[in-house]
Amino acid sequence: MDMEKIKTIIKEFSTNRNWEEFHNPKNLSMALSVEASELVEIFQWLTLEQAQNLSSDKKEHAKQEIADIAIYLIRMCMKLDINLEEAIFEKMKLNEKKYPLVDEKGNKIEYGKKQ
Amino acid sequence: MDMEKIKTIIKEFSTNRNWEEFHNPKNLSMALSVEASELVEIFQWLTLEQAQNLSSDKKEHAKQEIADIAIYLIRMCMKLDINLEEAIFEKMKLNEKKYPLVDEKGNKIEYGKKQ
Amino acid sequence: MDMEKIKTIIKEFSTNRNWEEFHNPKNLSMALSVEASELVEIFQWLTLEQAQNLSSDKKEHAKQEIADIAIYLIRMCMKLDINLEEAIFEKMKLNEKKYPLVDEKGNKIEYGKKQ
Amino acid sequence: MDMEKIKTIIKEFSTNRNWEEFHNPKNLSMALSVEASELVEIFQWLTLEQAQNLSSDKKEHAKQEIADIAIYLIRMCMKLDINLEEAIFEKMKLNEKKYPLVDEKGNKIEYGKKQ
Repeated sequence: MDMEKIKTIIKEFSTNRNWEEFHNPKNLSMALSVEASELVEIFQWLTLEQAQNLSSDKKEHAKQEIADIAIYLIRMCMKLDINLEEAIFEKMKLNEKKYPLVDEKGNKIEYGKKQ
Repeated sequence: MDMEKIKTIIKEFSTNRNWEEFHNPKNLSMALSVEASELVEIFQWLTLEQAQNLSSDKKEHAKQEIADIAIYLIRMCMKLDINLEEAIFEKMKLNEKKYPLVDEKGNKIEYGKKQ
Repeated sequence: MDMEKIKTIIKEFSTNRNWEEFHNPKNLSMALSVEASELVEIFQWLTLEQAQNLSSDKKEHAKQEIADIAIYLIRMCMKLDINLEEAIFEKMKLNEKKYPLVDEKGNKIEYGKKQ
Repeated sequence: MDMEKIKTIIKEFSTNRNWEEFHNPKNLSMALSVEASELVEIFQWLTLEQAQNLSSDKKEHAKQEIADIAIYLIRMCMKLDINLEEAIFEKMKLNEKKYPLVDEKGNKIEYGKKQ
């Protein structure tokens, strides 16, 4: 994913509209969670089976909401000077420790069970 | 950002733990919004000024929450067969139309005002 | 529900701790959505069937999260000078219009279909 | 607040539309968090000062979103057989213990600092 190109497009879009002042990290965290809820809204009344078999309309809608979340997430990284790729690699390493494959007795860990 | 590498790491992590069955798109939308709220939680009682000047502890915390959001977002893209980079470029083009620089009378658009 | 008693308890709790200054409506909206996500978290990996048959531990946990949401909701009403009971009655009347029992052709309305 | 009357109205509204099957606790937790985000959306780009001085339009909008949250919250209590008033009183008692007025050294507790 060409992150530099994406960041340039997002930055220009925002600067051209004089929206920089609104993009405070507090406000961006709110906007991000609002977009996350717009994705939740697509799935809220669906069964698990229906959620796995979205119509093409609903899939296109989900794609747009996912993009909105990504855009605010990248905006947030720009404001907090965070390298997203590095953050992901570091977090996956933490997750490997937090959710080891087996517990101290050698038993397989249950879903979501933290060490 | 090396998306293929990230997807491989996320996929292996999940497969090794037999977590694939839980990663239904409905469930993932919920998990994503929960992580988005954990980012909101960092900022909820801060002033706008404090939010722009996070302590290094809070910044590290924010970095981890941002990574969690990205991980579930990429997981969702894998499950719905969505190319995230393409989704972002398409959405930014839609945003250019939705929020033009000037309205039909040639006036500069107010913040967040849609055409 | 004895709303006056609840409001008095919430108000005193907050005043005694000098927390009034933090309870700006913007901050409260964030706190409320964070609590809503803590309720979502309980259900995120459950099937629909499991969600209808919570263990007593999970039910007690849900009860506490529901209370947290209610407390911030009432706090918000206090700050915005909104009568919650009146707001509910008014909204249910709007919903009756928005989701009529039959559409203009006399057909039963599908789930969530707005007029 | 006349909770019995509210519950009757909500129940009838839902039964008349055959919506009961959709009101699984998992789905309701999602709908509740979506409504909470619609309240967040009103405040996301406002300063703390602006949030305290809403226009009458925005206040009316907030009132409707607050009602939506309350309606789903009460719906959830009905599905999980939870007495909301009791839940609030119990949680406020827990909060009194969790956030005591002074810490073990007799110092006043900072905002949000848990014992």
